[in-house]
Amino acid sequence: MARPKTVPDKKPSRELLLEAAFDLIRSQGFGATTVDAICERAGVSKGTFFHNFKSKEDLGVEAANHWSKVTSELFAGAPYHGKKDPLERFLGYVRFRKEILKGELAEFTCLVGTMIQEVYASHPGVNRACFDSISRHAGNLVKDIEEAKKVHAPKDKWSPRSLALHTQAVLQGAFILAKASADRGLAVESIEHLENYIRLLFKK
Amino acid sequence: MARPKTVPDKKPSRELLLEAAFDLIRSQGFGATTVDAICERAGVSKGTFFHNFKSKEDLGVEAANHWSKVTSELFAGAPYHGKKDPLERFLGYVRFRKEILKGELAEFTCLVGTMIQEVYASHPGVNRACFDSISRHAGNLVKDIEEAKKVHAPKDKWSPRSLALHTQAVLQGAFILAKASADRGLAVESIEHLENYIRLLFKK
Repeated sequence: MARPKTVPDKKPSRELLLEAAFDLIRSQGFGATTVDAICERAGVSKGTFFHNFKSKEDLGVEAANHWSKVTSELFAGAPYHGKKDPLERFLGYVRFRKEILKGELAEFTCLVGTMIQEVYASHPGVNRACFDSISRHAGNLVKDIEEAKKVHAPKDKWSPRSLALHTQAVLQGAFILAKASADRGLAVESIEHLENYIRLLFKK
Repeated sequence: MARPKTVPDKKPSRELLLEAAFDLIRSQGFGATTVDAICERAGVSKGTFFHNFKSKEDLGVEAANHWSKVTSELFAGAPYHGKKDPLERFLGYVRFRKEILKGELAEFTCLVGTMIQEVYASHPGVNRACFDSISRHAGNLVKDIEEAKKVHAPKDKWSPRSLALHTQAVLQGAFILAKASADRGLAVESIEHLENYIRLLFKK
């Protein structure tokens, strides 16, 4: 009797479509990415697309939400959380951001930062989901920054949340420099200025 | 004899088209901006568009070049150049960037930073013109940073050019936060962290 064929796990169409959207939007932006191109990349029909998403705008919202989920898992599992000193955890986060600048530009730059540039006025729902992603990601840094501030810079006037958001501004700007120059080196240098700022701010 | 009618100065079609491109691309990105929409906003015919530009890509290149020209004039005429201390000139530049965050988001955010996100892989000619714009703008800061470094931080290892580019990364990232949150306040806070970094770096 023949053994049953091993069937490789097949990803659900929804996930294939979201991953295709990640690739295309990170390569060329939201405006230039058509539903047809997403279907072609995902290898699914247009009917399947519209079974999963009401519109391209809806896909944009869900792509931002899926981005939040995927990146949350990546950062939750990163090694810097194991450090005892809150400042070392925060600096470990910044160094981790530098370490993951690998592969092609479209593989390490930010889906939601890219989309915001185009959708902020024309697709407010997509923009909200993108800001929610950045805002929650920054929010995850606030506790470590607060603890580090209590120890190293208790009298300083800046707020931990503003510093968390500033790290995101630097990272987003660093991605733009990397894309513009086709050189991740400029992104690395900018993140190193951020590291330097954090050390100076905490007198370390 | 009747006096000749006063004819108001009419802008050349090329300039009307470039200004329409500025407005539309800063509002919704390069991908979502069609030649038809640019012509409609400029109030000129499609024939006139193609008399001035070979293609949408060519318009993108010329928009980035025109952006360089317009912004160069704005910054060349800004008051911070009059300060005697090179560090005060550099800090004056950063404060000036904060002061000009006025009006609508599309009026104070950056044309070339927005375009880079979308065009870096698909329209290399446009991307080159955008990087040239940012790179030359950053280049204008290098002399003041060099002079300030000689006086205040001669032994530090960072390069003046890397700090000039880092200022651009922060500004670009600050624009993304402003667009995402519809709140220029987040951009202001990020630029204030940059100011704080510069003061700490130069021990001022």
